[in-house]
Amino acid sequence: MGNNNVLAQKVLTGDVRAAAKLIRRIDDGDREILPTLAQLYSHTGNAYIIGFTGSPGVGKSTLVDRIVTKFREDAKTVGVLAIDPTSPFSGGAILGDRIRMQRHFLDEGVFIRSMATRGNFGGLTRSTADAIVVLDAMGKDVIIVETVGVGQDEVDIVNSAHTTIVVTVPGMGDDIQAIKAGLMEIGDLFVVNKADREGAGKTVRDILFMLQMNDERKRLEGWEAAVVECVATEKIGVDKVYSAILDHKMYLGDRGKLRLEKIERSRVLTQFMDLFKEGLLERGLKKIGGQETLDKVVSDIMSRDNDPYRASSEFLDAVISSGSR
Amino acid sequence: MGNNNVLAQKVLTGDVRAAAKLIRRIDDGDREILPTLAQLYSHTGNAYIIGFTGSPGVGKSTLVDRIVTKFREDAKTVGVLAIDPTSPFSGGAILGDRIRMQRHFLDEGVFIRSMATRGNFGGLTRSTADAIVVLDAMGKDVIIVETVGVGQDEVDIVNSAHTTIVVTVPGMGDDIQAIKAGLMEIGDLFVVNKADREGAGKTVRDILFMLQMNDERKRLEGWEAAVVECVATEKIGVDKVYSAILDHKMYLGDRGKLRLEKIERSRVLTQFMDLFKEGLLERGLKKIGGQETLDKVVSDIMSRDNDPYRASSEFLDAVISSGSR
Repeated sequence: MGNNNVLAQKVLTGDVRAAAKLIRRIDDGDREILPTLAQLYSHTGNAYIIGFTGSPGVGKSTLVDRIVTKFREDAKTVGVLAIDPTSPFSGGAILGDRIRMQRHFLDEGVFIRSMATRGNFGGLTRSTADAIVVLDAMGKDVIIVETVGVGQDEVDIVNSAHTTIVVTVPGMGDDIQAIKAGLMEIGDLFVVNKADREGAGKTVRDILFMLQMNDERKRLEGWEAAVVECVATEKIGVDKVYSAILDHKMYLGDRGKLRLEKIERSRVLTQFMDLFKEGLLERGLKKIGGQETLDKVVSDIMSRDNDPYRASSEFLDAVISSGSR
Repeated sequence: MGNNNVLAQKVLTGDVRAAAKLIRRIDDGDREILPTLAQLYSHTGNAYIIGFTGSPGVGKSTLVDRIVTKFREDAKTVGVLAIDPTSPFSGGAILGDRIRMQRHFLDEGVFIRSMATRGNFGGLTRSTADAIVVLDAMGKDVIIVETVGVGQDEVDIVNSAHTTIVVTVPGMGDDIQAIKAGLMEIGDLFVVNKADREGAGKTVRDILFMLQMNDERKRLEGWEAAVVECVATEKIGVDKVYSAILDHKMYLGDRGKLRLEKIERSRVLTQFMDLFKEGLLERGLKKIGGQETLDKVVSDIMSRDNDPYRASSEFLDAVISSGSR
């Protein structure tokens, strides 16, 4: 607890090394840092959170870099979390960090971290929420979370941002990809990157058409998702993306107050539930006898002397009495 | 229980409507069917499970259809589960089912079902495992599970198959996509579909190169992942894919017996753990007081009068006593 306290104090003063250490321990699934995060929590709630999602190869990293530069020009400090569910073996996240850090490494106002969620307990959503707490407590004005948006986890992550941006590119059925992954409903802003490629206009029209089909939220909450073309590598259209982000931020502070409340509520609920689930599992497993019991039950199921449904029900009875019995 | 019993009996005789009904209830997260699944379980363990994964648009469905036809020519019955985490609003899975069913709808030996996992509790992995139990108990010789392989859930699903196939296409950085998603380690067989496109040779070389970098499993378990080119729409190379599948099946029955045991053990453990986790959460939430308690704690956290770490820890103490205290 003593060490945790020091770590928390350092993070609150904006100490980059302390924050990096804490995020690494979050990523490693180290539960001993939970008291530190608890201490930081009362200092959070000030950052504006932006989620970027899209398939690999659509140029999210470049676009995020450009947007970081725009926020820096407006004297905002920025934290970037690149959520990269890379295999634990390949070390992709660490490599990614190094490449990305170089672009802003002279700027103390930018803090970039990749996470691969190597921890055993808790998933992507949990680690990301914890890391957001760290960046928020550090005093970052803007937190950008970047994910590969196809899995449900990734969708959940960006969906808890204040502004959610879906990035796509012309052609290759990416319009359909976005629809399949259920991204149409979560996007506050759609960016067609690499818009100098053939078919950009069609992609924009496809997205607009899909938005018309899914306009319930828009009608209910008074926000019309924008579709913006850009070529991030050439810095073309980045200003338009940036002002669309600021438009949505303004909307949330004004007509979209109910939406803002809903986002905050949903993020808090998700974080609480993830911690609760994780703790239930940790304690439940300890209660039933740990690895040895698990090995035995798995063998019994494999030989069909037991089945997973009966086995889990019996173990549950031993851990928590069922209310209905 | 009476109705469940009848449903189980019908599934065991191969009744397609009963199986379809059961899978729909699995997909809806209906927990009342768990006793039915428990009854079916002792009749499982006979099917050969094949997982197909890859980004949207690589032509997985077409390839799966071709492979189904090959198995049918060998007089094997086939069940196909297309895992489609589409938004609950768009009804994509149902539409997908209709389109796919048409191709084999005169063939009683093929049973195709899409799942969107609309249920509240349990995720993709849980529903898929349950549906595999149904198809296995129905007597299907081969079960093909098809997912969009980027999220961790999807990777987990195909990873529990006997043979895992990663499908990609030439160009568009798909090689890098596969690596990013941690698919190199899980593939027993890599298919480069649409291989009549430019860059197919390079994609094959890239995969082979990546496999060389990740050859630990190969060395340890005596299996060298194959890389096969095909053009599924033109039926070119499908025979090669099919014999590569049979090669891997033969390997598992012979030199790969330890690997087979590992796969079975991992699938059973995952299914048990998913059921255990789900039950813990259901009972835990009931114990702490349900929705009203949740609303209160979320409000307290939002106002920073509490924090998610302390709150979850307190609730956990109320549900399961911590062993270490």
